[in-house]
Amino acid sequence: MAQKINKKPAAGQPITIGLAGFGTVGSGLAELLERNSQIITERSGLALRLKTICALEFKNRSRQSLSQYRLTKDWHDLVNDPEIQIVVELIGGAGIAVEIILAALRAGKHVVTANKAALAAHADRIFKTAIEHQAEIYFEAAVGGGIPIIKVFRESLVGNHIREFYAIINGTTNFMLTQMVGKGWSYEQALKRAQELGFAEKDPTLDVNGSDAMAKSGLLAMLAFGGHIDSKKIHREGIESIRPVDVAFARQLGYKIKLLGIAKQKEVGKAEIHVHPTFIPAGSELANVENEFNAIYVKGDFLGPSLYYGKGAGSHPTASSVVSDLHDLGQRINGQNRFNPARYRFDRDITVMPMDSVESAFYLRLQVQERSGILAKVTTVFAKHRISIKSIVQHDAEDPKNIPIVFVLHKTREKDLRQAVATISRFPFVREAPVCYRIEDLS
Amino acid sequence: MAQKINKKPAAGQPITIGLAGFGTVGSGLAELLERNSQIITERSGLALRLKTICALEFKNRSRQSLSQYRLTKDWHDLVNDPEIQIVVELIGGAGIAVEIILAALRAGKHVVTANKAALAAHADRIFKTAIEHQAEIYFEAAVGGGIPIIKVFRESLVGNHIREFYAIINGTTNFMLTQMVGKGWSYEQALKRAQELGFAEKDPTLDVNGSDAMAKSGLLAMLAFGGHIDSKKIHREGIESIRPVDVAFARQLGYKIKLLGIAKQKEVGKAEIHVHPTFIPAGSELANVENEFNAIYVKGDFLGPSLYYGKGAGSHPTASSVVSDLHDLGQRINGQNRFNPARYRFDRDITVMPMDSVESAFYLRLQVQERSGILAKVTTVFAKHRISIKSIVQHDAEDPKNIPIVFVLHKTREKDLRQAVATISRFPFVREAPVCYRIEDLS
Repeated sequence: MAQKINKKPAAGQPITIGLAGFGTVGSGLAELLERNSQIITERSGLALRLKTICALEFKNRSRQSLSQYRLTKDWHDLVNDPEIQIVVELIGGAGIAVEIILAALRAGKHVVTANKAALAAHADRIFKTAIEHQAEIYFEAAVGGGIPIIKVFRESLVGNHIREFYAIINGTTNFMLTQMVGKGWSYEQALKRAQELGFAEKDPTLDVNGSDAMAKSGLLAMLAFGGHIDSKKIHREGIESIRPVDVAFARQLGYKIKLLGIAKQKEVGKAEIHVHPTFIPAGSELANVENEFNAIYVKGDFLGPSLYYGKGAGSHPTASSVVSDLHDLGQRINGQNRFNPARYRFDRDITVMPMDSVESAFYLRLQVQERSGILAKVTTVFAKHRISIKSIVQHDAEDPKNIPIVFVLHKTREKDLRQAVATISRFPFVREAPVCYRIEDLS
Repeated sequence: MAQKINKKPAAGQPITIGLAGFGTVGSGLAELLERNSQIITERSGLALRLKTICALEFKNRSRQSLSQYRLTKDWHDLVNDPEIQIVVELIGGAGIAVEIILAALRAGKHVVTANKAALAAHADRIFKTAIEHQAEIYFEAAVGGGIPIIKVFRESLVGNHIREFYAIINGTTNFMLTQMVGKGWSYEQALKRAQELGFAEKDPTLDVNGSDAMAKSGLLAMLAFGGHIDSKKIHREGIESIRPVDVAFARQLGYKIKLLGIAKQKEVGKAEIHVHPTFIPAGSELANVENEFNAIYVKGDFLGPSLYYGKGAGSHPTASSVVSDLHDLGQRINGQNRFNPARYRFDRDITVMPMDSVESAFYLRLQVQERSGILAKVTTVFAKHRISIKSIVQHDAEDPKNIPIVFVLHKTREKDLRQAVATISRFPFVREAPVCYRIEDLS
């Protein structure tokens, strides 16, 4: 029984947010805050209020659907608004975006950004300004899209010396390499397909030549090893010259080719950091990261190896990371050292559904005495219980009086399956108790 | 150049910790705090001070090496010490450990624990007591060992409705299933081997029958879906009855068998949660989680699918998670809304090593005009540069005047490799520029 002792979380003042940039990620952020604000408040007691959006055009949404926001083309409206506590920069690039980030920090506002290019090119100025004005700059979305790797490096691994990491952090090149390895395609074929599907830009240079992965590797290494890194010193090679013959040899030797950002700390203050196509064992976790997915494989001296996997780009995954940063900054603004009873929602029960009503696909093995006429009888029972069959496998058996037959069944309620199996198990030709396993296709 | 503007982090008062339990995890925690306290302070400004250890015996360490701590057999010495701010409970089980957790919370102390059994069996009492006394209970180490899954669910995914998760969260059974699938072993053979290697207890019941995975699944579902869950209602099946014939059929059908904790939210306040052996696609990320490793695959409505992988048990990985909790609570105790300049270590440079001095294993492909005498010449060059050869692959070529030869080379300095390749490329029998890729074995 739920304990009726929780009050509604005492929502503090709303956290007021200004957004610069309304492209695919910016509109995804607005969508997330519109759709999921209730659950964010339930979990954290925080009300995240998007007040103002600054963009040159608002083509992703109708003006009417944006009527709750103040819309502007002048970013000074974000920086000069005393009510705005956090400026979210989602314009990208190392131009005007940097100007906005610096101005917001100077105005004492916290900044959340997905802009790895700006952070890599102007790390010194940006972080120095943040320190001087005691404003924070958070950038979970800048590396690995929706993967919470920045927070993991900064907080979860706080007790570890991070020895090394290996990162697939460019979705474009990983998608292309997946096609080149899986289908034997050339670089040119893979690029064309990636552009058709929107995984590669019209000008893919910064992705395919490793520049994007280099910027991200430098940021991760900065967090991992705790110091300032001159990203121009990072050795970089792209995937443009990979040829099918080498992809084929790699396979023959038990490897897959992946574009990796690699960093290893050799001693305090000294590290190797490099980005290039790399042969890695085909059976490793990292080799199985395919298509547009990203993953970071990291070794801590106490944690050992660990891996973080997810979508490295896209409107919704990136918005998920931006909101994680907004949550953390909101907690700081409201004073994080208060006890937060909203962590424990013991004021409501989650009903665990009875297993009978759960739906799964199934594997079912019968051991039967003979083959003839059996399928007709069994499938009639399935049909009666509205269970449909995906496939049937019969094998030659050592003992011709004890033959396995395997059925793969489409999704069905447990109750229906159990009733059908009970009926089937009573057929005289069934020799042993039928064996059942649930199937999850993880799709 | 590093900016010399950071002062030493203003380390607040040390956070004073009392530890109950000095088995494998407890001694791992003491070891971590002894070895890595400096980097924790550098990163966070926090000094984590382990003051008192309570245990019935201290057989893991010599008394002398523990002389810096106060040692006691009476847990009241932790709870009644006004200086102790956080009690770490690493005894385990649902007996005396629960008593200590409750007493610490009642004394207003925050609690960190790895004890999923206590949390699952006494969730109501423990969380109710935490709320009443406004003390926190953190349990990163209770699910997934070193994997920071609790923090990911609670903070990184705060903007997502978590729709479902699939979790490999019992290392014993995953190790056994890896042997049963990979080597065709029976359940009994796999259990024997797991016990020999220390991956299974003498009495393995709670692992192999799914009880441990059930407790952890309930905790994760509580966080994911935000409510109270009666863990006795979770359907549970173990791995004891899995037979080689079904493992073989699974492979033939393209699946692997894994013991999964599965939870899916159907509507607010209603979920299916169940633990059982499950057929999952052999090519999926989760299917590649082998041996004693754990992983949690989770889908958020904005994040999409993501996966978190690492060691699910063991002294050091578990200590890593306990310290992550201590860090977070320490930040709260010291007032988290202060600006923390230690986030940016721009007062020191990380030197990026010149690529010439980096060591890698290499793949090298030559295209040559003929076969005879070539290996002798090439291997002589390698020997001169102290490069050793792991393997050589020669193929029949379509064009007998343009034959690929592939060398896999052991670890060597880039500089040595480049010099050797430069020499080799000048041989008259080499037709094209040699092709090189670095190899990382991720070991």
